Amino acid sequence: MKIGIVGLGLIGGSFALALRARHDVVGFDRSAAARGAAANAGVNVVARLEEISGAMTIVATPMSEIVPIAERLASRTDVGVVLDTGSLKRHLAAYAARAPERSRLVGGHPMAGGTASGFAAATADLFRDRPFLLVPTARSDADAMAVAGEIVRDCGALATVCSAEVHDRAMARLITAPLATATALAVGAAEAAPLLDAAGPGFRDSTRLAETSTDLALELLFGDVHAASAAIGSVVDGLEQLRERLEQGDREYVRSFLLAAQSVRAELDADQLP
Amino acid sequence: MKIGIVGLGLIGGSFALALRARHDVVGFDRSAAARGAAANAGVNVVARLEEISGAMTIVATPMSEIVPIAERLASRTDVGVVLDTGSLKRHLAAYAARAPERSRLVGGHPMAGGTASGFAAATADLFRDRPFLLVPTARSDADAMAVAGEIVRDCGALATVCSAEVHDRAMARLITAPLATATALAVGAAEAAPLLDAAGPGFRDSTRLAETSTDLALELLFGDVHAASAAIGSVVDGLEQLRERLEQGDREYVRSFLLAAQSVRAELDADQLP
Repeated sequence: MKIGIVGLGLIGGSFALALRARHDVVGFDRSAAARGAAANAGVNVVARLEEISGAMTIVATPMSEIVPIAERLASRTDVGVVLDTGSLKRHLAAYAARAPERSRLVGGHPMAGGTASGFAAATADLFRDRPFLLVPTARSDADAMAVAGEIVRDCGALATVCSAEVHDRAMARLITAPLATATALAVGAAEAAPLLDAAGPGFRDSTRLAETSTDLALELLFGDVHAASAAIGSVVDGLEQLRERLEQGDREYVRSFLLAAQSVRAELDADQLP
Repeated sequence: MKIGIVGLGLIGGSFALALRARHDVVGFDRSAAARGAAANAGVNVVARLEEISGAMTIVATPMSEIVPIAERLASRTDVGVVLDTGSLKRHLAAYAARAPERSRLVGGHPMAGGTASGFAAATADLFRDRPFLLVPTARSDADAMAVAGEIVRDCGALATVCSAEVHDRAMARLITAPLATATALAVGAAEAAPLLDAAGPGFRDSTRLAETSTDLALELLFGDVHAASAAIGSVVDGLEQLRERLEQGDREYVRSFLLAAQSVRAELDADQLP
């Protein structure tokens, strides 16, 4: 099918590279440099959003631009199903509730990526064997969901369908809270200054998310302040409990807390694909 | 030189494998299974602590056993310089202050390892190119430090000398605080339950330390409750600040917090050995 891709960074670029073997892919980015990088890699690019068309249009821009672009696309009849890729879904869901009746909008969130960004970091395998969350909106009919599901499969990803509310609450725990703790740990480690060089792999892993680009981090934190604050609050509550029981010498409580965390990790490891 | 190793788990086993090419290594573990695993890998083992002797004796047991074993060794004249490998140094330092005058004790802490444990996880390369902290005690003379430094070099590690106080304060930030946050994040993620399978690499990295063995985690947390509590408190303070400014919509403050964390990560990356 013909697929338009808006935004040719890490995510949009990886869609282009993953899908072009089976589909007729055309990409757009407002940055001439990004278009040039994609064109050099053999991706068909156009220089204006108006030239994008297809049976599906993937919007892989920074989060703050997703709804404005969805609004521009919703008035057109030649862009097919619009699938976004943002890390939060409530804004698209809210827009869909007031979008033109005949527009078709599906929320998407590939659970892949990293702290690298830009087309240079894009790969055809980025989504392979990774979960890909699909969030139906008020403008998602069965056909739109089927088209989105097909694209997910063609990227080698594994589709899971959930509501915007469940999605955003989970992401606050799985993305925003770890980002916040990585940041707080790194800032706190300034006090370990003379021995910071000695940081082992545990500290490096624990603070890796602090390398998230500032723009993306601000979007995640301010994109849904209520959910982000609640997720940070739950980590603070857990740490305060741990500290209190530690100071009380309550070894059994601390042990049960450690075991609860290990059981979550064991569940993750069991789900880890080969 | 002749080197005794007490404790043949991940750390002691890796010392045995790293040092046996250049030295006459003899290992002891109170577990017959650990002794058998080491013997199968070609390490010379003895069945009683009393049979260990050498110009250096490395104590690589769980932390709670380090001082009791150091006490047993300190009354002997045939064990040479005693080097421990625990993650906290104040207990050995306190013991050294009251140890027999002629005993020689050096604190050691190889910044290597991981969540795996036991001789099966040991490798000759575990310490290669990793920092190795050496902490002089009241029973460390120049010769003892020189012997310890030679062993560190023969493992391929990079020696850094620091005081017990600086060591333990830094480790609370670099080890205990990340362990606590990994645990709190994993426990908090139970609320993301329907989508836990969708956790990306960021969440996995951030919670990896929750897989630390319960025994080691309890030793780290209860080994120095004051330092652990302070380190957890500093992360809580950072998270609370972040949350407060987030709720106030203070984007500039949050940005500066993110940038401070990135600068710590950049320093780590600059120090990262190839």
